[in-house]
Amino acid sequence: MIQRYKLIIEYEGTEFVGWQRQENGLSVQQVLEEAAASYCQAQITVYGAGRTDSGVHAIGQAAHVDLPRVDSCDKVRAAFNSYLRPYKVAVMEVEKVKSDFHARFDAIERSYFYIINNRRPPLALDLKRSWWISKPLDAVAMHASAQILLGKHDFSSFRASECQAASPIKTLLQLDVERRENKIIVKARAPSFLHHQVRNFVGSLVLVGKGKWSDLDMKVALDSKDRRSGGPTAPPYGLYLDRVIYT
Amino acid sequence: MIQRYKLIIEYEGTEFVGWQRQENGLSVQQVLEEAAASYCQAQITVYGAGRTDSGVHAIGQAAHVDLPRVDSCDKVRAAFNSYLRPYKVAVMEVEKVKSDFHARFDAIERSYFYIINNRRPPLALDLKRSWWISKPLDAVAMHASAQILLGKHDFSSFRASECQAASPIKTLLQLDVERRENKIIVKARAPSFLHHQVRNFVGSLVLVGKGKWSDLDMKVALDSKDRRSGGPTAPPYGLYLDRVIYT
Repeated sequence: MIQRYKLIIEYEGTEFVGWQRQENGLSVQQVLEEAAASYCQAQITVYGAGRTDSGVHAIGQAAHVDLPRVDSCDKVRAAFNSYLRPYKVAVMEVEKVKSDFHARFDAIERSYFYIINNRRPPLALDLKRSWWISKPLDAVAMHASAQILLGKHDFSSFRASECQAASPIKTLLQLDVERRENKIIVKARAPSFLHHQVRNFVGSLVLVGKGKWSDLDMKVALDSKDRRSGGPTAPPYGLYLDRVIYT
Repeated sequence: MIQRYKLIIEYEGTEFVGWQRQENGLSVQQVLEEAAASYCQAQITVYGAGRTDSGVHAIGQAAHVDLPRVDSCDKVRAAFNSYLRPYKVAVMEVEKVKSDFHARFDAIERSYFYIINNRRPPLALDLKRSWWISKPLDAVAMHASAQILLGKHDFSSFRASECQAASPIKTLLQLDVERRENKIIVKARAPSFLHHQVRNFVGSLVLVGKGKWSDLDMKVALDSKDRRSGGPTAPPYGLYLDRVIYT
């Protein structure tokens, strides 16, 4: 008897090559699949809602997995976490789902947040957990400029060259920039994102925060539909996959 | 010309043997002294406001140091941070002080906080940054019981056997327990603390939070003035030295 489970997963991305299995190092997917294999004594694939790059963290990555045994959700969660023990990966929630549920294709919305640590001294406690920018940033200007990007657009200017999406047209539902003392939090929400889209938004918004870009520059960048017009890609370690929403 | 500087220091304690120089591994004091030595080409001692154990973090440790050169505070901070680069230690603030200022003896108050992560799944992002307790804790009961400890007492029941303080009598100014979603924050403030005092408070408060100890048990533990009556020592990695206050 095969049962499909939906998993909600937290991880610290620093020591992983990213979500997806790769030849060149340990991925979050691999350690989850190995945990499932140890638990069920079978080769098992874990399907994520989306890939995250090396260094990117997750509070609420979603995935699904078919296990050749029917256990309570509590037991499945405990089993995964017990086999995940050496890694900074934790299964937060487990839910039984129908056999046609798909973590990636059924997701209707993803949200991310990005943390910039905007202070003079370098980071100790938040190293690899946020992007350190010592020059003061104008978060109010960043927020205003971010609103230009809302809605349905061709986001080619903020799309990684290696992006595999069929179309560069996406609908951005939210892009908020908020200062909390030394930290600047960027929240992004959309049905789906292009590869590096949030990091490229953040890299461009930082140009606004530094006074190097105006709202007009942001508009021109968006309208040019050319990656060379967008700002630089923000580093991965400030980015957190927050939540994946299903119908 | 010798100038004394006060430093405020942030660090992630996981990879250190603690604040104080020791034979058996790298300490925060040692990396600061090596940074000072590289900066000034001289052997230099850094005096901390208080020792923290291995694994304990700091947001605002204080220290003083005599440097054989007079530079601006900004320059001193930048120099320290540049030489500290490989380590999770950052000098947050530098201030010129009189030559009789002493980081330890002039401190009139210390504050710490302790983070308990009270959730079912193990920790990924907060591993080594908080104490994971999966069983639900009653933070309201913990806070009530904590108030019993306020004031001037013989705190022998919460004092490590290796404590070098001349007297076990201390005055506890604040011990608050507050739940914020999954996290329980314990805030402690006093002119000074015994060795392991905050961690022993937390270990005892967790017994209250689990329903194993009543307020009366806490009172009996305090009054017995015997370490064997106190609760267990909470692990170091949930503890943060928050701030040291001077006149």
